[in-house]
Amino acid sequence: MTVTLDPAAARSVVRVRVRFGETDLMGVVHHSSYLQYMEVARIEWLRRRGITYASMADHGVHLPVVELSLKYRAPARFDEEMDVETTLSEVGTVSVRFDYRIVRATDGTLCTEGTTKLACVDSRGLHRISEEMAEVLKRSERA
Amino acid sequence: MTVTLDPAAARSVVRVRVRFGETDLMGVVHHSSYLQYMEVARIEWLRRRGITYASMADHGVHLPVVELSLKYRAPARFDEEMDVETTLSEVGTVSVRFDYRIVRATDGTLCTEGTTKLACVDSRGLHRISEEMAEVLKRSERA
Amino acid sequence: MTVTLDPAAARSVVRVRVRFGETDLMGVVHHSSYLQYMEVARIEWLRRRGITYASMADHGVHLPVVELSLKYRAPARFDEEMDVETTLSEVGTVSVRFDYRIVRATDGTLCTEGTTKLACVDSRGLHRISEEMAEVLKRSERA
Amino acid sequence: MTVTLDPAAARSVVRVRVRFGETDLMGVVHHSSYLQYMEVARIEWLRRRGITYASMADHGVHLPVVELSLKYRAPARFDEEMDVETTLSEVGTVSVRFDYRIVRATDGTLCTEGTTKLACVDSRGLHRISEEMAEVLKRSERA
Repeated sequence: MTVTLDPAAARSVVRVRVRFGETDLMGVVHHSSYLQYMEVARIEWLRRRGITYASMADHGVHLPVVELSLKYRAPARFDEEMDVETTLSEVGTVSVRFDYRIVRATDGTLCTEGTTKLACVDSRGLHRISEEMAEVLKRSERA
Repeated sequence: MTVTLDPAAARSVVRVRVRFGETDLMGVVHHSSYLQYMEVARIEWLRRRGITYASMADHGVHLPVVELSLKYRAPARFDEEMDVETTLSEVGTVSVRFDYRIVRATDGTLCTEGTTKLACVDSRGLHRISEEMAEVLKRSERA
Repeated sequence: MTVTLDPAAARSVVRVRVRFGETDLMGVVHHSSYLQYMEVARIEWLRRRGITYASMADHGVHLPVVELSLKYRAPARFDEEMDVETTLSEVGTVSVRFDYRIVRATDGTLCTEGTTKLACVDSRGLHRISEEMAEVLKRSERA
Repeated sequence: MTVTLDPAAARSVVRVRVRFGETDLMGVVHHSSYLQYMEVARIEWLRRRGITYASMADHGVHLPVVELSLKYRAPARFDEEMDVETTLSEVGTVSVRFDYRIVRATDGTLCTEGTTKLACVDSRGLHRISEEMAEVLKRSERA
């Protein structure tokens, strides 16, 4: 299966605000907190295309992270609003890849960028992404 | 069911070390982290009396927290070792209560104290604590 | 200092959505996650009255939690939207108290209720709440 | 500066036990939790060579994560003991790299492997790793 992605359609921007408990003693966002932001953003990415994670889970289908890679460019701080630019970059037979740029909303500073590969699994193991699902993933955000 | 508890037998001390990611921008342990320490401690409390949470879960039995109360007395800091003194203080028909004193290991300073009430539940709802289980809960730590 | 609070003015409702990473193996929100929701809500409560936590921190003033108490009434699940009803219930000389009701947005089910007492501190210790600050705390949300 | 590392000396194994709150609704360890295990392990790696993070922080020196990469091989579950095999793989002028293999203690299953690059920073920015520090990093664990 080859899925050609339209870069503009494949991108959503999800805003989060840094929580107090997500900072650490260096006074900045702890590096693990960005994984939460990326998870929030890709679930919202799916929702904006009509896919709720709850409906997937009802069918016994999950999308666990199987690979991730991150570069930290600049620190983010408590109470700052961050835009998580989330782009579906790859749809494979049994996996998808999302790329992220996390930028400070006020001045556009790139704080973190990264990528995650997610496997599509059900209770028996890897779950083939259907043509129907692939079509949905190619959608842009609904108006 | 009335269960009389022997205070000495009902008490275990579990040591944890403060993780970097558990601190916040005030430079001290975030208040939510103590809930993790208390959870670690009561699972260890059970293990030392021969009860693994895994074996309970295999029987479909869980012990969710239904009430908690905490007082924060002094801040704890990164890398400090903390002793979580954990005492079973009540065994009800369908619930148990544990009390906690979290003290800094080096100097005995009381950092936090609190209590949690846990319901015993299975997939259908509240699950009566058997006489057999109550007996086990009255045990002291195994040698 | 006696501060009389207008119950309607003292209340704000802040919506959060349950994150995947906030659930646990019981399939519901982990009990510690509610402390994050309450923290998010009270910081938003302050912001809606013109107080940013950042500006307080710039003056070296913080509001650490010194007491908390929670009752868990019903489980919340992944992706559900929760309304954190947050009410300032007490303004003392060096502390404030907020009460919370966390309800599922779709059907109004009360999931968790609780209270937190926060001390007002600076680098030297307890910090007296000024008359000016007390006045601000009595404000209702800005239009 | 070129630092030649002795692979055996450069390696420490740190055991952690999976906490209840570190699992998610899929019933396994949430992918972000491994970042905590890796952080715990590298702080312990340093301690076993005589370096406490506290002493570094007293000198205003920190080691924030600037890059990380992870592959998830097999799920870990609640209450399992995990061995975090931690190896210093690179000492640069202003950064160090650690590699990790996280294996289930009971059967040696590789659950996660990864790498983190850490910058050495002080309040002014990047902080050159001294010859003295580089020597310490080449030490094996103390007896």
